[in-house]
Amino acid sequence: MKIALLGIGTVGSGVREQLSACADIEVRRVLVRREIPELGSLATRAIDDILGDARIDAVVEVMGGEHPALEYVLRALRAGKDVVTANKLMLSEHLEELLEAARAGGARLKIDASVGGGIPYLFNLARAARTGGMQSLFGIVNGTTNLILDTMQVEGADFADVLAQAQRAGYAEADPSADIDGGDARAKLCVAAAVGLGAILRPADVDVAGIRTIALGDVRLFQQMRRVCRLLVRADRLDGDHLAACVEPTLVLPGDLEAAVHRNDNLIGYVERSAGLQYFFGQGAGKSPTAFNVVMGLRDLIDGAIDPLGAPLRRAEVDNSHLVRRYYVRTSAPLGVQAERIGEVGGAPAYLTEPLSADGMHAHARDLRKADPQLFFAGVRA
Amino acid sequence: MKIALLGIGTVGSGVREQLSACADIEVRRVLVRREIPELGSLATRAIDDILGDARIDAVVEVMGGEHPALEYVLRALRAGKDVVTANKLMLSEHLEELLEAARAGGARLKIDASVGGGIPYLFNLARAARTGGMQSLFGIVNGTTNLILDTMQVEGADFADVLAQAQRAGYAEADPSADIDGGDARAKLCVAAAVGLGAILRPADVDVAGIRTIALGDVRLFQQMRRVCRLLVRADRLDGDHLAACVEPTLVLPGDLEAAVHRNDNLIGYVERSAGLQYFFGQGAGKSPTAFNVVMGLRDLIDGAIDPLGAPLRRAEVDNSHLVRRYYVRTSAPLGVQAERIGEVGGAPAYLTEPLSADGMHAHARDLRKADPQLFFAGVRA
Repeated sequence: MKIALLGIGTVGSGVREQLSACADIEVRRVLVRREIPELGSLATRAIDDILGDARIDAVVEVMGGEHPALEYVLRALRAGKDVVTANKLMLSEHLEELLEAARAGGARLKIDASVGGGIPYLFNLARAARTGGMQSLFGIVNGTTNLILDTMQVEGADFADVLAQAQRAGYAEADPSADIDGGDARAKLCVAAAVGLGAILRPADVDVAGIRTIALGDVRLFQQMRRVCRLLVRADRLDGDHLAACVEPTLVLPGDLEAAVHRNDNLIGYVERSAGLQYFFGQGAGKSPTAFNVVMGLRDLIDGAIDPLGAPLRRAEVDNSHLVRRYYVRTSAPLGVQAERIGEVGGAPAYLTEPLSADGMHAHARDLRKADPQLFFAGVRA
Repeated sequence: MKIALLGIGTVGSGVREQLSACADIEVRRVLVRREIPELGSLATRAIDDILGDARIDAVVEVMGGEHPALEYVLRALRAGKDVVTANKLMLSEHLEELLEAARAGGARLKIDASVGGGIPYLFNLARAARTGGMQSLFGIVNGTTNLILDTMQVEGADFADVLAQAQRAGYAEADPSADIDGGDARAKLCVAAAVGLGAILRPADVDVAGIRTIALGDVRLFQQMRRVCRLLVRADRLDGDHLAACVEPTLVLPGDLEAAVHRNDNLIGYVERSAGLQYFFGQGAGKSPTAFNVVMGLRDLIDGAIDPLGAPLRRAEVDNSHLVRRYYVRTSAPLGVQAERIGEVGGAPAYLTEPLSADGMHAHARDLRKADPQLFFAGVRA
């Protein structure tokens, strides 16, 4: 198989290194934004050199970002070239259009590397969904926030210090918003919901809370409560047209599997009617694991393996009125819901609310944040 | 696809139930040992009614045991019928012969359900091994012993009581030897080593220690040591002809993933050169999960998915001289190796040894057991 790489950053160079050991996959062109002398004649800055080359069977999109990745991938698919991509942002926003282009061009789209780094999550989700019994998806899908939460707890460090340290070590972006506000996790949840539940969600419909405002004092209260905080995603099949879907910090029990997920590791699972609860654990990002998942996608093209996007998709509405739990809320604003006061963090009271629905809590938090932008809240697992 | 079931016990009836919802897989015959009136004309006691029926494409072997399952499966494969089996004992002892029969008959052998109940472990092991970078396999593969170890710790109960309770609840066999002496775990390790590392091991060569002699006093000492006991398997690629391979109780840290595996759940993993550490968690036994994995094997036959036994196999020798760690040993016999005395259980001293190789420790334990059949030992994770 002859392929082209669109992008040669961290993941792209990992893919190129790993393919150097594969006799049956040849990298023929690499799309670059600026000259990279050591690539020699492999490099091109013109996408048409790749899309117009009939000898190139498949394109690996590892440039990231929404544009122009979307336009390049659409053109590649319409031209009949298979595409392997790790681009969760593009996939979460444009999946229907991408699948339509793949159908039109008779091409295949392999997306396993877009969720969970090196974890074969989407592939297994698709494989297990073949008998129609997939019920729920959930887990820790963002390594940066897990690293921050775990380090705050283990080392008793402040959010800002841990974030700065993660940025220096390359575990967090210069602009960390997509990670710490939950947008990255939401994009992955939307991709997983498509693969596992056959549901196209509008990312903007998913209730999202991140960890930007968490304080060390909150973490100390969680320890007193014998709880561990993790940023969790969740989607549940309700009926044909409705899904529960949310992203929020959640206080789990110390003996729960999620509490044993340290550093930037990921743990992603599902419940299938017959198989029951299944979890997949691994490094959810990083050059080698993500590149490995891209290479698995290329191997799957060669082997004709199960297609994570083979099942029909339909649009779904989010309904979080049935996701009911207690919430930890720390805010200096008047809370306005029934709750027990359990402590104080930096002068602001911390509460444990009566059971609330996720949509109710997220809507209420949006209001409260107008008075208290430093509000933090987390679901409490029963 | 038209299939026959060999056996209609717990897993077999689960497969039949799950297939009732699959329009494209029809159960045409069921091999039974005694009359089962409600099966009507589906039932036969004659294997030739199945193997001689050219309309039957595939055979699901869920009778268990070594014989006559082996003879039936060999004949089915040689007759060109695909086989899906959950029989780890047959596979661990006769894999070469089975693969030779499959080659001779042009048939496929799907074995995913033989390890890990509903966990898609073998399938993923094979998929990830395609680029030749699989290094190690390990985990908790026996649900019965995990249930016993977890219950002893959580409830402070005696081994004999927990075992009796597990037997009454159907989680342990009337003769629990295969579980509590580690033989079941060893068979699964051998099957996984073939799939992941391409190595045929002689099960008898693998060092095995079980939990038959563990006492509540041992578990209390582990708690004082801030450790949790789990029965772990492990195989590491050394060079082309050698593998480290052993089964032994291991004292892990409370924050380790294994410590968060409760009741009869399983957690099985691997390390691949690029993907790094990956774990798979789920219910490792039981009617519905195991039957689900059998159904996945049938779906894989239809979909032409990756074959866990597609890669070439070679025989390998076990070399456990490089697996070095401290051991917890509790014995009334003179220990005879450098060790620190750390407590006493039922009048017998408990020790923490200097680092020892696994083959050295297991050989020494075989000697010590002549004087003290109640000896218990466990590796200590550093």
